[in-house]
Amino acid sequence: MSGLSINAERLLGHIRELADIGRDGAGCLTRLAASGNDKLGRDAFVEWAKSAGLGVRIDRIGNVFAIWGRISPEGAAPLLIGSHIDTVIDAGKLDGCYGVLAGLEVVQTLKENGATPDFPVIVAAFTNEEGVRFAPDMMGSAVFAGSLPLEAALSTIGTDGMILGAELRRIGYAGDETPGLFRPMAYLELHIEQGPVLEREGLEIGVVEGVQGISWLKIVVKGEANHAGTTPMVMRRDAAVAAARIVTFLDEMAQAAKGKLVATVGCLSVTPNAINVVPGKVEITVDLRSPIGALLASAETKLTHFLERLAVQTGCDVIAEKLSRTDPVLFDQPLISQVENAAVARGLSHRRMTSGAGHDAQMLAAIAPTAMLFVPSKGGISHNPREHTEAQQLVAGANVLLETVVGILDAAR
Amino acid sequence: MSGLSINAERLLGHIRELADIGRDGAGCLTRLAASGNDKLGRDAFVEWAKSAGLGVRIDRIGNVFAIWGRISPEGAAPLLIGSHIDTVIDAGKLDGCYGVLAGLEVVQTLKENGATPDFPVIVAAFTNEEGVRFAPDMMGSAVFAGSLPLEAALSTIGTDGMILGAELRRIGYAGDETPGLFRPMAYLELHIEQGPVLEREGLEIGVVEGVQGISWLKIVVKGEANHAGTTPMVMRRDAAVAAARIVTFLDEMAQAAKGKLVATVGCLSVTPNAINVVPGKVEITVDLRSPIGALLASAETKLTHFLERLAVQTGCDVIAEKLSRTDPVLFDQPLISQVENAAVARGLSHRRMTSGAGHDAQMLAAIAPTAMLFVPSKGGISHNPREHTEAQQLVAGANVLLETVVGILDAAR
Repeated sequence: MSGLSINAERLLGHIRELADIGRDGAGCLTRLAASGNDKLGRDAFVEWAKSAGLGVRIDRIGNVFAIWGRISPEGAAPLLIGSHIDTVIDAGKLDGCYGVLAGLEVVQTLKENGATPDFPVIVAAFTNEEGVRFAPDMMGSAVFAGSLPLEAALSTIGTDGMILGAELRRIGYAGDETPGLFRPMAYLELHIEQGPVLEREGLEIGVVEGVQGISWLKIVVKGEANHAGTTPMVMRRDAAVAAARIVTFLDEMAQAAKGKLVATVGCLSVTPNAINVVPGKVEITVDLRSPIGALLASAETKLTHFLERLAVQTGCDVIAEKLSRTDPVLFDQPLISQVENAAVARGLSHRRMTSGAGHDAQMLAAIAPTAMLFVPSKGGISHNPREHTEAQQLVAGANVLLETVVGILDAAR
Repeated sequence: MSGLSINAERLLGHIRELADIGRDGAGCLTRLAASGNDKLGRDAFVEWAKSAGLGVRIDRIGNVFAIWGRISPEGAAPLLIGSHIDTVIDAGKLDGCYGVLAGLEVVQTLKENGATPDFPVIVAAFTNEEGVRFAPDMMGSAVFAGSLPLEAALSTIGTDGMILGAELRRIGYAGDETPGLFRPMAYLELHIEQGPVLEREGLEIGVVEGVQGISWLKIVVKGEANHAGTTPMVMRRDAAVAAARIVTFLDEMAQAAKGKLVATVGCLSVTPNAINVVPGKVEITVDLRSPIGALLASAETKLTHFLERLAVQTGCDVIAEKLSRTDPVLFDQPLISQVENAAVARGLSHRRMTSGAGHDAQMLAAIAPTAMLFVPSKGGISHNPREHTEAQQLVAGANVLLETVVGILDAAR
C-alpha cells in the first residue's frame, strides 16, 4: 500500500468544521468535557465515522471508538489510533482534534484504496483529556487502560458542581461498553507539539520517545514582615530574598542538565506586598519535568537539600508541599523506529524528542506498544486561539501517520 | 532648672486619652488627616494646651501651635518642639502623638516649676504627616518650612475625592496664620523608633543624626510566557528568573554596605501566574535607603548598570521607573550633642542612629538646627495596633527631651 496519501482537503475540512462547533458569541472555542458543546463535537465525529462506513461504540466513561473491522475476544488485537476532542476554555482548534481527525482520515484513505487489514483499525476520541472541568486530566484513557477505576471517574464532581457520570448520560455519551473492551496491539497518537522546538529547528516531524515525568510542588517561605526603612539588613528575615534564591537555584539546576530537565516557578505571591514592607511570606509553585525518572527524583532531592540549607542560612521557615507527581513514560522503541522510518519514507525532516505535555498516549503505554508523532506549533503556542500549524505541516503529519500504519499492516502480513 | 522630671501620670494619661479618640466599632484607631476624627484629636490637644495656659494659633495649612510666651517678628526666635497627631488606618497610639504630647508635657513641667525662658517655647502638631489620605506625606511641615507651596497643598485631592483645603475648613482647622509665621531657633522631635535597633541592643535612647534618603522605583521585566513543559530552558525568556536576580543583587549590594544602605523588594507580581506557564512579565518595587547621599546615588547607578547587563544576559526587556526620591537629611551636630548630653545626664543608655522612616524633622531641618530623639519600639512594630513602648521608656524619652530643652534654656542665659 506504499505511495498512498491522505485526502488533504477532507482532513482540513473536518478540522475547520469541528473548530466551528462550540464557539460563543465572541468567537471563543470551548468544548469542556461532557458539556453540551462536547456533545455537538462528538456528534460530528460519530457522523463522519459512520459516513466512512465505520462502526461506532461508546464505553461507560464516554470514550468513542470508530471501528474498521470487527472486534471480538478471539480475534486479532486491533491497532488503535487516538487522541481527544474536548478542549480547554478559549481553545485553539488543533490540540487533540487534529489527532482524532487525522486517524479517521488515515482509516478512510486506506479503506477507499482497498486495504484489507488482518486486524481491526480503530480511531478513539478519549473523554476529558484536558481535565479543565473534571480532574484528573487524561481521564478517559486512564480508565480505558485500567489505571483509574471507572466508578471513581464517573463520580467526579466538576468545577461547576456537576457529576461527570450524570453529565455523560445527559449528553447521551454514557455508553454501555466496558472500558478496556479490547486490548490494542499498538497505539499511535498524532499531536501538535505545543512547544517551540520543531519550529525553531525548522523540522517537520517530531518522533516522540516518551512523556516527561512531572513534579509539582508548592513552597511557602515564612520570614518576618518589617519596616523597609528602619530594619537593618542583618536583622531581616526577608521571604522574597529567600524565594529569589529558590528561583535562581532551580534555573541553574535545570540549565546544567542540558535539556534533560526543565524547572519553572510559575506562581509567586508576596505578603503583605507593600513597597515599604520587608516581605513576611512568599508562596511559590515549582514545576519540574524530566524524561528520565532518576533525574527527576534527583532534582527533587537536590531541591529538598537546598531548601534545608536555605532555611538555616536565612532564618526563614521553608515548607515544601507535594501537589502532584507522575513518572516519566517511555514509548516502545520498535514502534518509535517505525514512525521514524515513515518520516524518512515521506522525505520529511525529523528529530526524536520528548513530550513536555501530557497525552492520552502515556496512559495507553501501560497496556500496549505506543508511539507519538508531533507536527510544529507556530511560536510554540497552545491552549490559546493563536494555536496554529501550517496546512501543509498538518497534511505531512497525517501522511507520516498513514505511512506508519501501512508499515504495521505490511509487517503483519 | 536641672533635676526636673516630667509628670509621668499626666503624659501617659494624655497618650491614653488621645488614643481613645477616633476608634471605630471594632476598636481600630484611625485619625486620617483633616477627617472628623482628626478634628476630635486636634480639639483634645488644643484643650489641653489652653488648660496649661498656652496660647493656640492655627496656620492656613492647619498646623496647630501651642505657644508658651509671645511671638513677634522683633522678638527672640522660639524653640519649637513638634510632631503630628494624624494617624494611618488601624494605627498604633504612639506614632507622632507621643512627640506632641511629650512636648506639651515638657512645657507644662517647666512652666509649673517657674521657668522663665528668654524666648517662646512652642509645641507644634503638624498637619498630615502620614500622607495616607492626602499625598505627599509630611505636608504641614513642608508647607511651614517653605518647601511645598501652600496653595498646592490646599488643593490636594484625597483618596476619597475630597479637597484638603475644604476639609480643613469643614473641621474648623483652616487657620488664618501664614505658614512660617515664625522661624524657630531650633527644632526638636521625640518619636518612637519604629524599628528594632534600640530594643535588640537593649538601649533606652536613640540620638538621631539624620533621616535616610529614599529612592523608590518600579521595575517591569518583560520576558515571554511559554508552556512550562514544552519550552526548553535555553529557549526561555523567564521574567521570574530575571526578577529573582534583581532581588538577589539588591540584597547583596545592601548587605555589602555594612549598615549604610538598606534595599527592599516589597511588591512582586507575576503574569500570568500559572503553575505550568513560564512567567512572561514580572513587576517589582524597589525601596533603597541610605543616610549618605553619595551612597544612595551610587546604589541607584549600580542598579541601573545591573539592569542593563541583565537585559542583555536574559533577553528580557527591563524597564525601571522612578516613583519618588528624597535626599538624606543630616541634623545639626551641636544640637545632636546636646541631646546626647541630656541622655548622659539622665543616666540612660543611648546610641547615635539614623532614622529609617520620614519625619516632620526632615522638613524643619531646612530652616532651623534640628535633632530628634527615639525611644524603643517593641518588636520594631509600627503603623499597627501592636505598636508599643513600655511606659518607663516613654517617660525616659520625655525626660531626655526636657533635659535637652533645659540645656538650651540655660545656654541662652
